Amino acid sequence: MAKELKDLTKRADNYSQWYNELVVKADLAEQSAVRGCMVIKPYGYAIWEKMQRQLDDMFKATGVQNAYFPLLIPKSFLSREADHVEGFAKECAVVTHYRLMNDPNGKGVVVDPEAKLEEELIVRPTSETNIWNTYKNWIHSWRDLPILCNQWANVVRWEMRTRLFLRTAEFLWQEGHTAHATAEEAEAEKQRMVEVYARFAREVMALPVVVGHKSPGERFAGAIDTMTIEAMIQDGKALQAGTSHFLGQNFAKSFDVQFTNKEGKQDYVWATSWGVSTRLMGALIMAHGDDNGLVLPPALAPIQVVMVPIYKSDEERNLVLDKMYEVKKALEAKGHSVEVDDRDNLRPGFKFAEWELKGVPVRLAMGPRDLQNGTVEVARRDTLEKITEPLEGLDERIIGLLDDIQKSIYQRAFDFRAANVRKVDTWEEFKEEIEKGGFLLCHWDGTAETEAKIQEETKATIRCIPVDSFVMEEEGKCVYSGKPSHQRVIFARSY
Amino acid sequence: MAKELKDLTKRADNYSQWYNELVVKADLAEQSAVRGCMVIKPYGYAIWEKMQRQLDDMFKATGVQNAYFPLLIPKSFLSREADHVEGFAKECAVVTHYRLMNDPNGKGVVVDPEAKLEEELIVRPTSETNIWNTYKNWIHSWRDLPILCNQWANVVRWEMRTRLFLRTAEFLWQEGHTAHATAEEAEAEKQRMVEVYARFAREVMALPVVVGHKSPGERFAGAIDTMTIEAMIQDGKALQAGTSHFLGQNFAKSFDVQFTNKEGKQDYVWATSWGVSTRLMGALIMAHGDDNGLVLPPALAPIQVVMVPIYKSDEERNLVLDKMYEVKKALEAKGHSVEVDDRDNLRPGFKFAEWELKGVPVRLAMGPRDLQNGTVEVARRDTLEKITEPLEGLDERIIGLLDDIQKSIYQRAFDFRAANVRKVDTWEEFKEEIEKGGFLLCHWDGTAETEAKIQEETKATIRCIPVDSFVMEEEGKCVYSGKPSHQRVIFARSY
Repeated sequence: MAKELKDLTKRADNYSQWYNELVVKADLAEQSAVRGCMVIKPYGYAIWEKMQRQLDDMFKATGVQNAYFPLLIPKSFLSREADHVEGFAKECAVVTHYRLMNDPNGKGVVVDPEAKLEEELIVRPTSETNIWNTYKNWIHSWRDLPILCNQWANVVRWEMRTRLFLRTAEFLWQEGHTAHATAEEAEAEKQRMVEVYARFAREVMALPVVVGHKSPGERFAGAIDTMTIEAMIQDGKALQAGTSHFLGQNFAKSFDVQFTNKEGKQDYVWATSWGVSTRLMGALIMAHGDDNGLVLPPALAPIQVVMVPIYKSDEERNLVLDKMYEVKKALEAKGHSVEVDDRDNLRPGFKFAEWELKGVPVRLAMGPRDLQNGTVEVARRDTLEKITEPLEGLDERIIGLLDDIQKSIYQRAFDFRAANVRKVDTWEEFKEEIEKGGFLLCHWDGTAETEAKIQEETKATIRCIPVDSFVMEEEGKCVYSGKPSHQRVIFARSY
Repeated sequence: MAKELKDLTKRADNYSQWYNELVVKADLAEQSAVRGCMVIKPYGYAIWEKMQRQLDDMFKATGVQNAYFPLLIPKSFLSREADHVEGFAKECAVVTHYRLMNDPNGKGVVVDPEAKLEEELIVRPTSETNIWNTYKNWIHSWRDLPILCNQWANVVRWEMRTRLFLRTAEFLWQEGHTAHATAEEAEAEKQRMVEVYARFAREVMALPVVVGHKSPGERFAGAIDTMTIEAMIQDGKALQAGTSHFLGQNFAKSFDVQFTNKEGKQDYVWATSWGVSTRLMGALIMAHGDDNGLVLPPALAPIQVVMVPIYKSDEERNLVLDKMYEVKKALEAKGHSVEVDDRDNLRPGFKFAEWELKGVPVRLAMGPRDLQNGTVEVARRDTLEKITEPLEGLDERIIGLLDDIQKSIYQRAFDFRAANVRKVDTWEEFKEEIEKGGFLLCHWDGTAETEAKIQEETKATIRCIPVDSFVMEEEGKCVYSGKPSHQRVIFARSY
């Protein structure tokens, strides 16, 4: 393993390879036997659980309730909402049969040709159709509204080129689906949830994100407005980390969901949907990791503090471990997660490298001399600094340190982004600057044609029309067409 | 709705219909557009989340970690473990294609015939095969063991006759899969987890269960030993509520998972798996519900206390609600979930019936006179008793009451079971008694033939060979064959 750790590719040498190796070496996830489907390993899943728990609490604080809708969708549902089918229906896992049988030639099992479904079923790529077909039965009057449902679920999209966490055929996510009596309420919900995502990204993931609207060309299939949080990764690319959609009355009309409003008239229901997925894991790794491995913000670290004993004899080992368990107990009592690495077949240096690889925010090392002096060596993962601290009052200082690390990781990512955002006003400059990575703030004439041409020529897309971080309403000329524009938008290459 | 409530079928008239209606009327779940797949509604899902959270904590306390394995399984995996394929591979959702296309005739979408998978994929009916194929890469030495993984996931089994929660084509569950260096450790894990299930059933679900071994004929496909918790439902039938399997080295051999043991020799890994599902929801409803609706144990009630204001004027309404919010705050501060039903378009009587239907353990009603007298009407759902209590010190008494209700619900179910367990020693008596329902404690000669014949003639199966609740090692003669037997087993009809 020590050898393997050293083998981690450097970010500067090959960022993409660094990521792929790190996901596997840090025990986060791996490929499965089914192409494009991943196994999320316990350490990776523990991070995802921390994301889930904190997001779920934030959703519930806004009045959202969880529910569960079926995995399988009748094929015909997908063609109900015309824009939706254009955007989604193509690359799906299709269930056509419901039974296997023993191979008549005695070799394992084969699909029973008699057990063909009358209508094929699709493994959900997203659940708007199933959910709106259900809401039809739940909604009759304005008194039944709003409905604020979320589900934590798996979805399948048959992606051709997959990467662990970032783009997988099956992934885990949450999808919120809300129903409202008025357009205003639905728009407010869309806004509320993108703000929940932004707050989660910033405060929990230590990820500075820009909130904005997607351009019409980048909207969710079937949406009137899509809002997004966009993160900047260390290679200067953008990563869409969460979206919140105002769906208007599109799905209500497709599934005939009408209600009696306060005035006693029939109207179609207004809708939103919003989601984040295990893609957040990719954003987390890519935004903060370094050449030694993961760097986890304390708010998401399954192990916040790891302790490595230094000893030569069994007696020394016992003395050091006793003290460590004492410190562990004190920190755990204050709600922190602590591990004592008491494995006796590995050297401290090996353990240090392994816990660095796994991104544990704080490492404590202690030997017999420390015990004598009443000290401990404290190493912080984000800066790799080591200092010797007195044992006296250690738990309070560790708690302060965790808080500091959470903030520092955010600040570092924030500074990196600040250094990689530039205003660009001419097309020549654009083509040059986009090669350097980062976000380019440019005027755009608002047409799909210009957007498409810029993408064609540079692979850059409009990440969003920002509403915070970089709001710049000002008159100018489109960087590509020279036509008038009232606001800069963010162009970048993206994941 | 008030009318609908009254329409709930009485248990005595038609127990099965009572259940089906109650699941829907109490907003727990409903059928979806896909045959046999259910929608779990927010109120039902909130109960499931409480089950999940408490079970998950219990699992983690034993050292189990969560992980996630893919939804889809290569068809060939299912034929690797011979017994397993016999037991499972038949009724599955089979994915054969990965793309849809626009119908050339312009009518919606059709399956793209070009996009046929080389090997069909099965939507997991259970994950042993995927997981053991993964463990192969994780396990090399005894130092890699044990592996104690659990996943919370959805599974699909193409059941022909489905009932909400009890038997659905898709259901939610947890499946634990552990790997061990020795048979003894694996057996101990199997035992530990069935005990976790029993404790959860008894303490959280208020469900008295019997722990025991399944007979060979009722074992999980591929298991050496299956342990079960068996509940008795109000119609006297048994319901299997959770199982824990010792799988021996069967899956390790099928997927070639070997390790170097402490002696430096290669050996196959020993395995367990264990699971409970949304079927527990069915057990909960059936075990405790009454003719007025659900009866929820406080440990699982999404709303533990509901308050219904009684008023004639707006002024009275405001005064009563103010007091109610004060009580709510005090109870919530102590970790209890409280709802004030301040809907102004419904009469108190309607609200009472609705919250009874939904099984809320404690209902408080308060009017202007109560306010004057410093009192409140307290109704407990389990016994339907109402008493008037002073407001002074109410929160402490409510907490005591919730505790009492939790115990009383258990006791009632325990007494019911005790009244419906009988020793039966002759075949004539057996045939008569099985018609009355309940558990029959009988000697059995240990053969599959006898078991099969008893089932054929009476539809009763061996629910388990009990290791607690009804352990009766004693010499006797098989109730069917008259051959010698050393222990009584439990026969019952079951869900």
